[in-house]
Formats: sequence, C-alpha cells, structure tokens
Amino acid sequence: MQKPIRLNAFAMNCVGHQATGLWRHPRDNSARYRHADYWTSLARTLERGCFDGVFLADVLGVYDVFRGTADAALIDAVQVPVNDPLLLVPLMAGVTSNLGFGVTCALTYEHPYPFARRMSTLDHLTDGRVGWNIVTSYLDSAARNMGLTRQMAHDDRYELAEEYMEVCYKLWEGCWEDDAVVRDRARGVFTDPTKVHPIAHHGANYQVPGIHLCEPSPQRTPLLYQAGASARGKTFAARHAECVFVNGPTPAIVKSYVDDIRATAVSVGRDPADILIYAMFTAITAPTQAEAEDKYAECRGHVSLDGALALMSGWTGVDLGALAENDVVEYSERDANRSALESFTKADPTRRWTVREIAEWVGIGGRGPLAVGTPVEIADRLQAFQAETGVDGFNLTYVVAHETFEDFVALVVPELQRRGVHQREYRAGTLREKLFGKGPKLSAPHVGASYRR
Amino acid sequence: MQKPIRLNAFAMNCVGHQATGLWRHPRDNSARYRHADYWTSLARTLERGCFDGVFLADVLGVYDVFRGTADAALIDAVQVPVNDPLLLVPLMAGVTSNLGFGVTCALTYEHPYPFARRMSTLDHLTDGRVGWNIVTSYLDSAARNMGLTRQMAHDDRYELAEEYMEVCYKLWEGCWEDDAVVRDRARGVFTDPTKVHPIAHHGANYQVPGIHLCEPSPQRTPLLYQAGASARGKTFAARHAECVFVNGPTPAIVKSYVDDIRATAVSVGRDPADILIYAMFTAITAPTQAEAEDKYAECRGHVSLDGALALMSGWTGVDLGALAENDVVEYSERDANRSALESFTKADPTRRWTVREIAEWVGIGGRGPLAVGTPVEIADRLQAFQAETGVDGFNLTYVVAHETFEDFVALVVPELQRRGVHQREYRAGTLREKLFGKGPKLSAPHVGASYRR
Repeated sequence: MQKPIRLNAFAMNCVGHQATGLWRHPRDNSARYRHADYWTSLARTLERGCFDGVFLADVLGVYDVFRGTADAALIDAVQVPVNDPLLLVPLMAGVTSNLGFGVTCALTYEHPYPFARRMSTLDHLTDGRVGWNIVTSYLDSAARNMGLTRQMAHDDRYELAEEYMEVCYKLWEGCWEDDAVVRDRARGVFTDPTKVHPIAHHGANYQVPGIHLCEPSPQRTPLLYQAGASARGKTFAARHAECVFVNGPTPAIVKSYVDDIRATAVSVGRDPADILIYAMFTAITAPTQAEAEDKYAECRGHVSLDGALALMSGWTGVDLGALAENDVVEYSERDANRSALESFTKADPTRRWTVREIAEWVGIGGRGPLAVGTPVEIADRLQAFQAETGVDGFNLTYVVAHETFEDFVALVVPELQRRGVHQREYRAGTLREKLFGKGPKLSAPHVGASYRR
Repeated sequence: MQKPIRLNAFAMNCVGHQATGLWRHPRDNSARYRHADYWTSLARTLERGCFDGVFLADVLGVYDVFRGTADAALIDAVQVPVNDPLLLVPLMAGVTSNLGFGVTCALTYEHPYPFARRMSTLDHLTDGRVGWNIVTSYLDSAARNMGLTRQMAHDDRYELAEEYMEVCYKLWEGCWEDDAVVRDRARGVFTDPTKVHPIAHHGANYQVPGIHLCEPSPQRTPLLYQAGASARGKTFAARHAECVFVNGPTPAIVKSYVDDIRATAVSVGRDPADILIYAMFTAITAPTQAEAEDKYAECRGHVSLDGALALMSGWTGVDLGALAENDVVEYSERDANRSALESFTKADPTRRWTVREIAEWVGIGGRGPLAVGTPVEIADRLQAFQAETGVDGFNLTYVVAHETFEDFVALVVPELQRRGVHQREYRAGTLREKLFGKGPKLSAPHVGASYRR
C-alpha cells in the first residue's frame, strides 16, 4: 500500500496568517475570525475532508522589526489583531467528532502548573483530541510586554523548555494513577488518595510540590507537536515531539530538515516512524488549470508586499525595510537568528534573492511551496513532494478564507482518496490513536512515558 | 413595579462544589463534569429559565488544611479534581444566545498581558456575554505550586490587584480607538495604526510597553464581578465591581455586607444602583412540601461531614480537624483570615456552633442559606430574603447536579414570573446591557471608563 498523505489545516486566530493583504480579496472572510461561526464552519469543512486536524499558530507579540514599527503589520492585519487560540478548541470540538486540534502555546510565558490544567481540561472536553505545539516563543515584542527587556537567549529557552516538559510530564503522567478515581458510591470514595502522588518537583526554574488538579484525561499528555528548525530545536523535537511541522521553499531544504529530525530521533533511541512530519504547503485549485491560474492571478493582485516583509523581518529579526526593493539579500554565517532567511539563500547557493522576490514568495503561503492547478496537478505535486522529502503529510495554509480549504476539500481530497493515499474515514479513538494506531497514551521509548507509574 | 429578582447559577468545573458528598446521590451526574455535554445541557437549562448567567468558581489549589492533608477533599471530590473554567465558556456560548458567563480568574497567577487577550477573545466569541470574577486567590496550596512559599499577604494582593486592573483597563479601554479597525478594502487599510496606542505601562509589578493584541470586543472590559468580603476586598469591589457576590448564613449578615458595599461605592463616587449584588442561596424544591422534605432528607443522607470540614478549613485556614465533633468553635478577633468562620459566629453572638453543626450547614449549600419547599414557599423565601437584605438577586448553588437547577427552572421560575419578579425574556445586547440597560461598555463614573480615549 502507498504511504498515506496526512493533512492538517494551518490556521491562526487572526486575519492574515501566511498570506498578506488577502483580506482585501472580495471573497475572503478572514475578518470574521472574531466570531464563533467562522471557526465552527471551518471545523466542519475540515472534518468532511477527513483532515487529521487544525493546527493553530500563535504569537503573543507584534511584527515590529520591519522599519522599526508595527505599522505595516497593523495596516494589513498581518497576525495582528490576534486572539487567543486555546478558546477555539472547545468551540470547534463541539461541532465535530474526529477532528484533532494542535494548539500553539509558548511555554516561556505561562507557568506549567495552570498550563497543565488547561491542557488536561481540553483533553477531557474533546475526548482526547487535543495536541500542543510546544513553542519557546520568538518575538522580542512579546517578551517586552511580559516585563522582560527581550526574550531569553535561544539556548536558554530550550533549557527552560526541558524543565517545563519535566514538570508537565510529572503532572500529566506521574501524579494520578490510572485507577485513582474509583467513584465508589457504596464505599463513599470518589478518589483514592493513596493513588494521587504529589510530584515534589524542585528545579532550577520551577517549584511544584503538589498534585495535578485534574484526573487523568484520555491521552494524559496531549499529542506533542514541535516546529523547531534550529539545531537545538531539532534535538528538542527529536526527544519530545510526536508530530513535527517543518517549512521551507524547496523539497531539498525540507528533505534536509526531515533527514535531520529522523536521524536525531534515532540518536535519542526513538523509532523515526514514531514522528510524523508535516510540511507547510499552499494549494490553489480549480476544476481546470486556466481557472486555477485565474484564481492565483486574482490573489496575487491582493498581496501586500510590505505585509510580507513585516512577517519576514519578524521571523528573522532583520529589518528588510532598511534595504531597497531590488537589493539582493545577503546572508552571512555569522548572523544569528536568521534561519528563515537562510532557507531562501540555502535553497540554491547560486541563486540570489532580491527583497521584492522574497516578499512575493512570502506574500502567498509564507516560506512554503505553492502549487496552482487542477486537483490532479495538486495531487501529483503533493505526492512528488512527499516522495522527494520523506514527509508524512502537509500543513496546508489558506490564501482566501475559507475558500482555499473548501476548494481543497471539494476537489483535491476526492482525488487523493481515489488514489488511495487519503483516508475516507477516521480511525477510532483519541487523536494519538488516530495518527499512530497504538494506544491513547505516550508509550516507551518516548521520554514522557517514563514518568508514568 | 416590584424589584426584579436576578438569578445566576453557581457552578464550578469539578464534582462537589457547595455540597459535599452529594456525588453519591443516585441521581447526581456531577462526575460527568469532564464532558462537554454536561455543560451544554446545563447552559440550555439555565437559558430556558432566563438566568442572567452561570457564575463559575475556581481554585488553583487543593483544600489541604483539614488534618494537614488533601485526603478528605480527594475522597469526596471536594473541589478536586478541578478543571479550568475558562474553556467551558465557548462551549456553553455555542449552544445559547443570551446566557452570560462570570468566570473566576485569579490575577496573582497569570500575567495581565496574555490574560487580557484571553478575556477579549471570549468577549468576541460570545458576542459580549463574558464577565470576569476578579479573585486575588486564597489557597496557600495554589501559591506553593506556583513557586511561592505561600500566598502574598492579603493587603499586598490587593495592591497588586490595583495595578493589574490598571494594566487591563489600559489594554481593554485605552489602546485601540473605536474606529481603529476600518477594513477598507479599497484603500488597503485594515487597521489605522495612528489609532492604536502603545499603553506604555511602567509600574511596580508590571512593565507593559506595547499594544493590546486584540481589536475592541463588544464590551471591551468584560463585566466585572467581585466577591471580596474583607474590608480591603469591599473597597476593591466598590471601586471596580459591577456585580458583587456575597454569602452568609443569615439575612442579617448578608445585609451588613450589602450596606457596606453600597456605602463604600458611594464614598468612591459611584451610584450604589450601579452594583448588582447576588447572594448565595440553595433551594430544594418539589411540587409539594412533603416531596421537597423527602428530597432534602435524601440529600442529607449523602452529605460528607469530613468533606464539609475540608472546605471550611480551607476557607478559614483553621484546621477544624484538630477539634472534636462536639467542640464549640471559638472565634477570636485576633485571628487572621477567618471571615468565613466569623460569618457563623457573628450571625447570632449568643449562639455557639459546634464543629458538627458547622459541617452539617456547610455540607449542603456552603455558607449560604437553604430553603426547602414548594415553588410558592421558595419564591416567598427569596422575596423575603431580598427585602430583608437589599440584594438584587441570587447565586443559586446545586445540591444534586443538574436536578437542583432543572427543578428550579421547571418549578420556581414560572412562580417568580407569575409574580412579575423574574424576566420572561432577555433584554437585547451584551451581558452588560442585559443587566443594566445602558451601553455595552463601562461608563463614567466607573474608573475603567476613564482609560478610554
């Protein structure tokens, strides 16, 4: 049997996510992100298409590196305003039965004790359909509003992240035994207190002596996503992640990430098949190639280049507004925090990108690849990309909300199903069971499983 | 026209809230608190009864003062396990159109920057039906798990709370002008950046230089609830609260709170009518008095006295497990943190309460009064209590989930409506408009309104 193509939708509780200026498109409804029905309608569409889940990005700051202000981001609603992603999960879960939810929560800005409770609550309310995208955060503007002068140094964040994970595993896995809650009306025992263990965590950053406040949820630890692209990030992902989200403009770059992650996973004793890797991808489709090209042309007419440069400047920490449109963007090995820029310059060492060319690429689909075509053409591209890179599936972005996803579900999903590479129905059980076909909980050799009694 | 009786339901994302051991009752379904349908079904019932809202309590710790352990609380599921309340709001809002939500969030444990975004997100998703019960937190067990050795001193918490409110008002009211979001497709301007103002907050506890991440929500500041009973708590409530929740076992005690809050409100320049006061109240009802008495007797048979003492010991910080059942509980003016105990001893200075008597009282309906009877009897009691105390309405607790609320809605609500003291339909608009009949936003002389441009 052919390797299936797994599908996630990539979204964010904001207007412009990975396409800048597209809110001006006459059929785009992304300005309705504030309203419940925007999300329930998306969730229904994705479940109809048997998507694994919706992956919700987040930032807790603004893109203010470009020209030193957030003006360009505000003018084009580039990830600002941005509402909290966590609160969308109960809403979307309420109208679906199988769709999963990968929610981005930056661990440097919330104490693990209340955070662990929030995730357990979501896992209970969704019957085990929740995932957590572990992010250490990357915007200085976020750190500043949390009372810091800037974000922590990159590697320090990962040190903190390791301890944060330890606290979470102790709470989720190690505290309540499976049979702690007995609900024995006759004996008058709801919870057997001898089976609930204070975690007694005393670390460099966190002191958590007590018990987790929640009884065990279906998955205990939510399904763990990670998206680190740095060396330290990949090591963290190899150790903790069950799903990894990668992005890069060419198959060669994405393949290098995939190979790296799987090799690092092996080096920490995991089976590389226990990590599902999703690549960001954007597809504009229509019944005929000409119609698809027309759609694409219409979208291009609405791209905001300043918005794209605001995104890219925020991602890299480099103010691209200081350069002229036709300047070639130089990349130096000495520069820190430039992995996003590197992904362009590394693609083809002989190719030079101007500021404008980068903006045009990023403006539709961010740093990922774009395909425009019939369902057959899109399916071919996805299969070829998968074959070239070794990814398990795709994190699909929207260009026009919700048209991009509706088109994909109506046109490409049936084509993929015809080819036998996309599920026609969901596997039973929790999100973890649907994706891996094993049990609902973390299992050895994943480090989290070692905390369970 | 007679003064209406306003109704809230008092609930918590846990099993036993204000009735201990009742999870053993054969018709009680509170063990289903983990599941979405438990909450959607409650929300529908309350909206059918034209309740103003559901008031969600919360603790971020366990009741471990009684005998120095959390065992009694765990055995009877006394507010532990306890899931996050915030995540219930989108769920319940999704199946209702008018019900309001008062959510308890302790401000000492979350930074105001992400918190303000969570509340704005909820206000958007619910079309302006969200309220915030401002709590400074009271359990040492919670503080310890946040890395502190104990909670902050009581008055220091209120100092911090004042600055916390200032940051929130600046974000909610002062940052985005009403017409900042223009969504002008032709001009290509989603947000006019000249109308979004960094709040530049530099205080003793918080540094928040930047902008709020959310565009203005229907109410901007969520409806503000408070429940402080201490002198400092009442001053805080008089300054910030729009709804106050009080509790005490007798009308005399409740009246003293009500008079105090209204007098303090006047002293800070507010109209006492701009604060709605809800008293905790428990009603067990049935078509006939005999049936109601039977129901009550059945409930009493399931009360856990240890569970009640675990609650009371946690509330007061006094280990009632160190006393014998028949010991009289002495109250000393010198003892700190004993307002909950004081409410019993102050009720009637000549009355002495034994440990067992307090447990029996608290075991059904916490520190509030209990009424058992026909709908006519309950309605009489509510009206008399309102007349004696000056409260605007009641925060009704459940004894048997959801039977207590279902009975009330089926039997007492029609009786109150017949008497013309309970609404037959909701007023239009946001929660604030439904309750006060004025605009959706805070208005002068409320301190929050002064932050709006």
